[in-house]
This record gives sequence, structure tokens and C-alpha cells, in this order.
Amino acid sequence: MPDVAVLGASGYAGAIAASLLWRHPHFELRHVTARSEAGAVLDEVHPRTRVPLLLEDYDPDVQGDVDAALICWPHRVSAPAVAALRERGVRVVDLSADFRLRDQAVYEDWYGSHGAPALFGAGVYGLPELYREAIAGADLVANPGCYPTAALLGLAPLARAGAIADLVIDAKSGVSGAGRSPSATTHYISADENMTPYKVERHRHTPEIEQELAVLGASLPITFTPHLVPLAQGELVSCYVTTTSALDDTQLADLYREAYEDEPWVEIKHGPPGVLEVRETNYCRISVHVDGRTGRVLVFSAIDNLWKGAASQAVQNLNLMFGRDESEGLR
Amino acid sequence: MPDVAVLGASGYAGAIAASLLWRHPHFELRHVTARSEAGAVLDEVHPRTRVPLLLEDYDPDVQGDVDAALICWPHRVSAPAVAALRERGVRVVDLSADFRLRDQAVYEDWYGSHGAPALFGAGVYGLPELYREAIAGADLVANPGCYPTAALLGLAPLARAGAIADLVIDAKSGVSGAGRSPSATTHYISADENMTPYKVERHRHTPEIEQELAVLGASLPITFTPHLVPLAQGELVSCYVTTTSALDDTQLADLYREAYEDEPWVEIKHGPPGVLEVRETNYCRISVHVDGRTGRVLVFSAIDNLWKGAASQAVQNLNLMFGRDESEGLR
Amino acid sequence: MPDVAVLGASGYAGAIAASLLWRHPHFELRHVTARSEAGAVLDEVHPRTRVPLLLEDYDPDVQGDVDAALICWPHRVSAPAVAALRERGVRVVDLSADFRLRDQAVYEDWYGSHGAPALFGAGVYGLPELYREAIAGADLVANPGCYPTAALLGLAPLARAGAIADLVIDAKSGVSGAGRSPSATTHYISADENMTPYKVERHRHTPEIEQELAVLGASLPITFTPHLVPLAQGELVSCYVTTTSALDDTQLADLYREAYEDEPWVEIKHGPPGVLEVRETNYCRISVHVDGRTGRVLVFSAIDNLWKGAASQAVQNLNLMFGRDESEGLR
Amino acid sequence: MPDVAVLGASGYAGAIAASLLWRHPHFELRHVTARSEAGAVLDEVHPRTRVPLLLEDYDPDVQGDVDAALICWPHRVSAPAVAALRERGVRVVDLSADFRLRDQAVYEDWYGSHGAPALFGAGVYGLPELYREAIAGADLVANPGCYPTAALLGLAPLARAGAIADLVIDAKSGVSGAGRSPSATTHYISADENMTPYKVERHRHTPEIEQELAVLGASLPITFTPHLVPLAQGELVSCYVTTTSALDDTQLADLYREAYEDEPWVEIKHGPPGVLEVRETNYCRISVHVDGRTGRVLVFSAIDNLWKGAASQAVQNLNLMFGRDESEGLR
Repeated sequence: MPDVAVLGASGYAGAIAASLLWRHPHFELRHVTARSEAGAVLDEVHPRTRVPLLLEDYDPDVQGDVDAALICWPHRVSAPAVAALRERGVRVVDLSADFRLRDQAVYEDWYGSHGAPALFGAGVYGLPELYREAIAGADLVANPGCYPTAALLGLAPLARAGAIADLVIDAKSGVSGAGRSPSATTHYISADENMTPYKVERHRHTPEIEQELAVLGASLPITFTPHLVPLAQGELVSCYVTTTSALDDTQLADLYREAYEDEPWVEIKHGPPGVLEVRETNYCRISVHVDGRTGRVLVFSAIDNLWKGAASQAVQNLNLMFGRDESEGLR
Repeated sequence: MPDVAVLGASGYAGAIAASLLWRHPHFELRHVTARSEAGAVLDEVHPRTRVPLLLEDYDPDVQGDVDAALICWPHRVSAPAVAALRERGVRVVDLSADFRLRDQAVYEDWYGSHGAPALFGAGVYGLPELYREAIAGADLVANPGCYPTAALLGLAPLARAGAIADLVIDAKSGVSGAGRSPSATTHYISADENMTPYKVERHRHTPEIEQELAVLGASLPITFTPHLVPLAQGELVSCYVTTTSALDDTQLADLYREAYEDEPWVEIKHGPPGVLEVRETNYCRISVHVDGRTGRVLVFSAIDNLWKGAASQAVQNLNLMFGRDESEGLR
Repeated sequence: MPDVAVLGASGYAGAIAASLLWRHPHFELRHVTARSEAGAVLDEVHPRTRVPLLLEDYDPDVQGDVDAALICWPHRVSAPAVAALRERGVRVVDLSADFRLRDQAVYEDWYGSHGAPALFGAGVYGLPELYREAIAGADLVANPGCYPTAALLGLAPLARAGAIADLVIDAKSGVSGAGRSPSATTHYISADENMTPYKVERHRHTPEIEQELAVLGASLPITFTPHLVPLAQGELVSCYVTTTSALDDTQLADLYREAYEDEPWVEIKHGPPGVLEVRETNYCRISVHVDGRTGRVLVFSAIDNLWKGAASQAVQNLNLMFGRDESEGLR
Repeated sequence: MPDVAVLGASGYAGAIAASLLWRHPHFELRHVTARSEAGAVLDEVHPRTRVPLLLEDYDPDVQGDVDAALICWPHRVSAPAVAALRERGVRVVDLSADFRLRDQAVYEDWYGSHGAPALFGAGVYGLPELYREAIAGADLVANPGCYPTAALLGLAPLARAGAIADLVIDAKSGVSGAGRSPSATTHYISADENMTPYKVERHRHTPEIEQELAVLGASLPITFTPHLVPLAQGELVSCYVTTTSALDDTQLADLYREAYEDEPWVEIKHGPPGVLEVRETNYCRISVHVDGRTGRVLVFSAIDNLWKGAASQAVQNLNLMFGRDESEGLR
């Protein structure tokens, strides 16, 4: 069984990833790290994981002694660790944004200077439903952002059909998306009974969605606005698509059935999805509608931001990288 | 002091309206009615109101003995009561949809046959910020829907400037918008930690928004999608406007400042509003942004769906109808 | 593999039980029933289960064709179905209260007449940590109530030691405990941002707790008060024990370690438990404290009311009844 | 009109106090202070207050130029400011714990050394329902803690009747009680869908409750355990009283009616209170029950921890100190 490490296991996504790998039938979780909580047992920091491993300080010579690592660190901090582990032959799924973008100028514009420029662009974009084969052969996989995961799965069939002329994405996320650091935003009293748009015009998932839509055939600037809603885990993207030519319900249904009928983790539904339906799962649940009044196509796509939007998708990628059934350890 | 009645005081909006009028310096709350809870004291049904009046059965000969009435009943049920009270000379603010639309065919298409066709179209649309003078002279005011209130206040400056070429409204509401009847939708376990689009393509506030936008100068079919979010009171509309010509931030700021600088209940803010900021108030809080990437204008407008979206706006209208300061009893 | 049926799979506990059995390595879920939703697929009614079975009408000749059944029906309705299935040789875990009490007069006092008096008292009380061996040989197991599960696991070591002189239990439960029927109590607007005691002096779990404490050695009337708190799943009982003689922290710690050190599903912790730590698990998490000021012993015990308090404990019992590891299908 | 200042207006209680005083008919709010947010407008920090005053740095020579001050600072930090303002002749309501206790050794045991020992014990305990006359003549009022407010109002009639032989208080509070500083405890993801006991055996409100119960006639050590529940504002104390002699429902009802029938802010109800019923009010809502099984008396007492438990009670005290109707500005 391949040995694995999870770097940044004290964050929400890292803790879930560690929990999934601890129970995985074909990986052996050897190391979990945490910056400020090193020395504690993961179990105590995140009781729901029930992973009794000691959180270690990061040391590439220690955690580099594995076959694969999931890195759950912020952008810019992640890249040097990716480089250090790759040098030691460790296969990496990086959950940060550092290896998602293809254009370094775009990266620098949105994130600042890159932490391992020699490796820039070396990762495969880890959305299994789009890049399954490339992931299977990859040593470095860039796990997608949560919003891009939901948006791209929702829009891929339209983008590939050349049907997207204009696009507005109104996205909503639970509070775990803001991370585990206590802040005014994540304070219960700020978030409870509230909802608000945030990072209007400047959320970093915008160029990532645009890049991948372009690969699929839809090169256009998009409007993307995330909103914070008062729940813990769950993400919904509501996509408003002006189409290049009129589509009717049957054409639309065919398009999505063909795209996803064999996908184990994408569910196309008649009625709009609720985020609770995918909570703590690797599923993405989608509905598609033609708005009869305007001809616009509406796509609603729901995921758990910490699972399919981060941790469980990382394990799905890891499964593919090691030639396993991509669903192992995820049901 | 004019005597007033609140019909349908056991619903959420009716109870708040009764509470506001009970404490109002210039109206005397004489009657409150409820269908199934007649005989109980309002206070017991809705403790937060602290209104010790007995809930009565509806009888136009009883409640018709007042100067004004707020009717907080569903569409189609409301119109006959409006007619009966108007016959007795009672001035009415109707919170249902029965007198909001101008085109009877549109009404029938969305709501079915009208309950008092002789009065169809007789009401003034009760959005004080747009129709203050007409409301002041009216005997029948049609209180706007909650979503139209937030959307129209957010979009009026653009509509009047002829700037709206295309429009998507993504709206989000707390659970009180679904009414007080227990149902699968309003069950705590369905709504908690969930969010979902609802009534996709067919929410009845769509033609109401279109009608009023057309009056303001923007005749176009719109895409309007409401979502249910897990909070009690609060409504946010996120408006995505493709403009007829490019607007910069300064032009936009000027447009909104001119429109609202003297309005007591509209707040234009630099950053996006949260619904908690307007909770249990008559305020509508708005921010406007130019999306530099696409040129699109984004408008976020937040209200309390039960206050500015229903009860407190009805009192604001009542104040105007009786020549009082429109803000009396609302601070 | 034994065939099993879940009766009442459209309720919250029934749906979870069906979901656990659908994925269980050693039972084959053959039938799921629902009264009003028969004809629908369980998956559609409870998307999170992802069980694609058709909900059937109850017919003992249909669902009686299995080796074992979990009955998730209300008290009094359940007993006749238990009798019908037992006649057909089906081994039953009954989640209602019908077979928990030993004294028929007490049952009738709290619940009314019994629906299958010939079988009264025929069940084994299904708390595996107390009655593991009896459950293993049983054909009919009475799955404990949610509050009794948490309270008895929390108090058993003290009761067996003869240490309980007086007892107050202040219990708190999430809203799922009130069942799936929409009502004023379960309406989001009633429960959200609220908490309240309910069924003061008359909650039906009181005699069940007293009966089982007496079996353990503590015969006394207790004060038991449940409270409704605004969360979906989770239950905490705070037990205030006046002891028969003074106990110090070490004695207390020894008592609980000895009782539970080999139990797979009971966790004794130093600090007080939060219900989120046991959410969607079969764990009961307990802390014990001596209040230095008063000498009183405080016990806090947390479970998921739908899991250890109902569905997963039923599966734990089923495992024992069929000679399997009691934890199968629960991790 | 007397000029007033609110020190610590950026905290939750301070912001509400400022909001109430800004709209108060007989006080003029002149100064609001904040440590880290000085320079901002209160309105921006706490939009719901709609108080457009600039937050100032604390300077006794600036804010000392008023007739009265509310100090919303933590214990130990508050006392020196109280002293500085008292020297300048300012009448003070102190919301910290610094002047609540009568026994300095007890204070030091629970809080450490006192910040103005010369003034220790100089304050009147500001529970108007118990000390109305003393408050009216006081220059320094120690506003009670939130839990003591709810507990003492709930227990005073029993304590005065000499009826309390033993007492357990199980208290539950919303998250605002933990203050505005972001922390692991107040993070949305920690508090949401969770509940947990905290500060078991060592919450600082314990000696305060004991002291005041003793004054009323019940000298005994108590068990007091607070719990954190997932809501913003609201506090419920469930009191379990072993009585010195048996009481029946009528005696109990008489006791409470006599105690509170003329009190404007105490509501005695037949059924148990919910915290939502008193949200954002100065009310304390109480129900009393005799548990027939054990003879124990149960008292449930609900307040809004930030209003009657802090800010609105402070204004109630200020009204009394200045000879006004104690309810002014609170309805």
C-alpha cells in the first residue's frame, strides 16, 4: 500500500482528507502536519476525524518519505513544498491555487509572485470528469478551487457545444469556505442570520474558471460573484448563460445526459439541487433549465465545498494517479 | 386619531404590522383578525408583538368600522375583502398581489381569475420612493412584493436612465418568505444548512418587476431566480445589468446619489450590503459596482422581507395616505 | 446474507437505518415502506440516503418475507406490526417505545393501551453496552429512546456503584427529534434562534430512564427536562447527581474507565463534549466532573439522536442478533 | 438633558447601549469610545445601531465631561476608568463585574486583583426589580451579569420565601455572550450545529448568584453550568430547586404573582418561555412548575443576554438614577 502524507491537516479540508485517507483501503496515512498545532493529536483538534495521529511540523525530509502527499496549504506557501516533495519523488495533489493556472502573468496578477517558478504550469488540472486520463499519468495534480469545480461541471457540456455567448455566475458558499482562522467574517455573530456578496469583481476563482472554460471552447470574460450564506458546508453556483443559439429542453437534457451518464459523481436532476443533498459527499448535483421568457439557460450546480470542492476530490485524484478505482474510499 | 384594522394578523407580516400600529403615535389599532386562530390573543400567537388584542373572525361589518385597514391575506382571497371594505369607505393597503398588476390578462395568467374584477387596476403601486405623491392621494394602495421592492429600488436609477439592456436577478430570501403554514419546505430540517433555487422560471414576482421596470423606462423580459437560504428574515437581490452604453463608477455613483440622497429609507453604501444590517428595519441598503472585466453593472439590494418587503412598508404607505410623515412609527 | 426490511423508512431514523443497511456488508436490504409516500423512491424523498429502492405500502405478507426487520413507527402503531412479523418468524428491532417498558401499568399510564398485549415485555432492551449478551440471543429488541441512550450510558457506572442519591437531568435536543411531520414546533421560524423547555414534567422518556436506572441499582424518581435547541441532529444530556457518598476525581475516572475502556462506541473525555463531535456517528461521548463547591457529580453525555439515539444503534443491535461484529457497517 | 458617554461602544453590549441612548428622549449621547476601532464611525462598525458618532479613544478628560457614563469594558480594566470618571463627578453604570461583589476576597479569588480597591464595594447592584430604590440614589451602579439577571429574577420569590434548600442551575446562552473577539469558540464552524457545556465548575457568575441569593435569604453553594448553543442572542436558565418544604402549584403561582405583578419587565407565563420571545427586549420571561414526581420546583427564565442581560438593563438603571421612568427609551 502506498504511504501518504497530508500537509496542513489542521485546516478544514486537510482534516477531512486525512480522515478519508485514514480509512482508505489502499493508502496508508503516515504523516499529518500542522503549523501552529504541531504536537497535538489530530483527533483532539478535529474530533470528527477520529484520526489518532500526531500533528508534525513540516519537514520535507520527514514527510518526504512517502509515495504521495496532499498539500492543503494556502497559495504561494504551497509551491515551495510541492517542489521539495517532488524532488524527493513524492507524487503530489496540491489543493492550493499554485498549479492551476497556465498563464504565469495571470497568476502573478491575481496571486503575486509564484513560490516555485521552475515548476509553474507543471500540474495537471485535477477535475477528473474533464481530465481523467491526464490525471492518471500525472505526478503533480492541481486540485481545482471549490467554485471552479461546481461551475465547470455545470457548464462543461454547454462550453464544449460552443453554446456560451455570455455568462453570469452567482455563487453562494457556506462559512467553512472562509477557512479556519477566526476573523470578523467567520465570527458566528457576523455570519449567522446574514448573507452578503463578497470579493465583488475580484475573487481569485474568476481567472481559473475563465481558463478552463476557454479550454472547453468558451473564451469569454465572465461575471462571477460569490456570496456568503449562513451554513457550514455547501456551495451552490447559479449560472446564467446567454446561448449562441436557441436550445430547447430536449437538446439540453441530451447534452447533459451524454456528458454525465457514466460519471459516478455527477447527478443530473430534474428539479434544482439543494446543497444539503450533497453534504459530506463527493457528488456534484446539477439541474439545467431553459428560461422560456428570455431563452437563457440556467444551470444550478451544488457541491460540498470541503469535499468535492477540496478534500474528497483530492482523494479521487489520488486514486486515479495510483491506478485505483477513482471512487475508492469515498462512499 | 384614525382607527385601523389589520386583517390576517396571525401571519408573519400581519403580526409585525399590528405590532407597529399598536405602538404608532397617530393610528389606533382597533381590530386584528385571523382565520383559524380567532379567539386567541395576538400576544399568545406571536409573543414578540406584545399586542394584547383578541384575534377576531373577519366580518366586514365589524372591521369595516375603521378609517383604514391593512389586509395581509393571500392573493385572490384578498380582493373581495378589499372591495367590501372600500364599499364601506375604508382606505386600504393591500399586501397581496391583487392590485399590483395593471394588465388583467397578465394577472390571470400568473394568479388565475381575479376576486374583484370591478376594482382591478384601481390601486396605486405602493413603493413610496417611486410613487410618493400618488400614494398620498390614494384610497387603495397595492403594497409591493418583497422581491420587487428590493429589485426596483436597486434598479430604478438605471431604468430611468435608459441604461438597462439585459437583466439577470439572482435573489435570496430567508425562510419567513415561505409563510407561516408548516410544510416540508419550512420544516427546520429541510431548510437548516441548506440552500436551493425555487420556483425557477415561474415566480410570480417576475411580471411585477417587469411591469414596474417598464414604467421606469426599461421594457424587457428578465430572468429572475429566487433562492431559499437558511435564515429567518432578510432578502438580498443581486442584479446583473448589461448596460445600453458603458458606465463608469463616477457616473454610477452620481446616478444613485441623485436618486436617493433625500430618501429616508434607502442607504447607498460603498461595500456590498448584508441582510443583517437591515433586519427588522424599513431600510433598503444598496451597493452598485461596475465589473471592470465585462462592463456589466452589479447592484446588490438588501431588505428585511417582512419589514420593508411587507409590513413596515405598508405602514409607510399608510402614513403617506393620511398625510403624516412617512417615517412615523417606524424608527 | 440475511434479508432485511425497514418499516417507516420515510421518517428521519428510518431513512438513516435504510441507508446504513443498503451499504452494510452482511445484510441485504429488500424492502422499505412508507405510509403516505409509498410509490416514491426513497432516494427522492431523502436524497442523502442514495437508496434507490421503491417505498412500499406495509403488508406483512410482503415485508414478512425477510429474516429481520427494523420498525421505525410511532408507539402503539408499532406493536401490531411487531406481532405480525414475529408470527412469520421475522426477528425484529423495534424503534418505538412499545417494548421498552417492563411494567404494563406504567406503559398504559404514559402511552395508553398497548397494541399487542400478548407480546408486552417480550423484548430485550437494546442498549448494547448494558445488555450485549441478551441482545445476541433475542428475537425482539426494543431499541432505546434517544434521551435514555445518552442518559443511561452517562449514568450507568454511577448507578451500578450505588452512588446516585438524587438526580436532575437537563437534556437538549436538535429539531430532528420532533419528527418529520411539519408543525408549528418544527417550522424554521419557530425553532431558529430559539430554545425552550418542552414537555416539562411529562416527557415519556422519564419512566424509561427510571426503569433502567433501577435495574442498574438506582431506584429513584428523577427530574428530567428536555429542551429544544436550534440545530438539526444532536443531543446532550447534562446530569446533576447528588451522590450517596463523596467521590473524588480519581475514583470517578476509575469508575468510568473500567466501565467503558473496551467499549467501541463510548468515548470518555476530559473536557465536556459537543454534539458536533458525534454527529452522524454511533458514538456516545461523555465527560464526568466533581463539582468542588457542592460535591455534586456532573455528567455530560452527547449523542446524535438519529444515530446512536435511533438508527445506528438499531443496526448495532441487528449485528449482535445475527452474531456479527456489532460495529459492522457503522464506521 | 443629561449628557452621556458609552465607553466600549464597539462591543456588542456597548453598541446596543449606544443605540438605545442615541434614540432616548431624555439623554444626549455625546461620546462613544473604542480601543482598536477609534476613528471609525460606530455606524460602520455596527450598522444596525445607525449611530453616526465617531468612536473616540478613551480619555477621561474628554469623556469625563458628561453627566453619566456606561462602561462596557471587561473586568479589571473597567475599575480604573470608573474611578477616573467618578472623580470628575460622572455618574456611572459599570457593566463589568468589578463592582458587583461585596467580598473582596471572593472577587480576588475569581477575578484577580481589583483595579480600584478604594472603590471596592461602592456600587449598588443594578437589578432594578430587587434594588430599585437604592439604584435611584446611586452614583455608581454595578450592572448585573447576564446569567445572574435571569437566575435571580427567576429565583428571588423562592429565595425570599426561604424555600430554597438545594439548587442546580443549567444555563444556556447564545454565542454573543462570548464577546466580539474572533476565537476558536466563536468561529461559525465551531458553534453552528453544536452545543456544549463550558467553564464547568468555574464560571464567574457563580459567586455573583450565590451572593445575591444570600441577600435574599438563601445562603447555599450552588451548581451552575452554562452551555453554549447555536444562536446569536438569548439566554435561558433552567433552575432545579429542592425546596425546604412542599409547595403546590397555587402557592407557587401566588408567590410569583405577588412578586412581579407590577413589574413592567417581568412576564410570568403558564408555559415555558422561549428565548426568541424576549429577543431584543428588556423583558425577562419566567415560568414556574412543581414537578409532581419529585416535588422539585422548576423555574425557567429567559432574557436577551445583550439587552436585559446587559445594555437595556443598564439604560433601565440610568433612567432610575436620573429620576426618569425606568422604561423610557426601552419600548
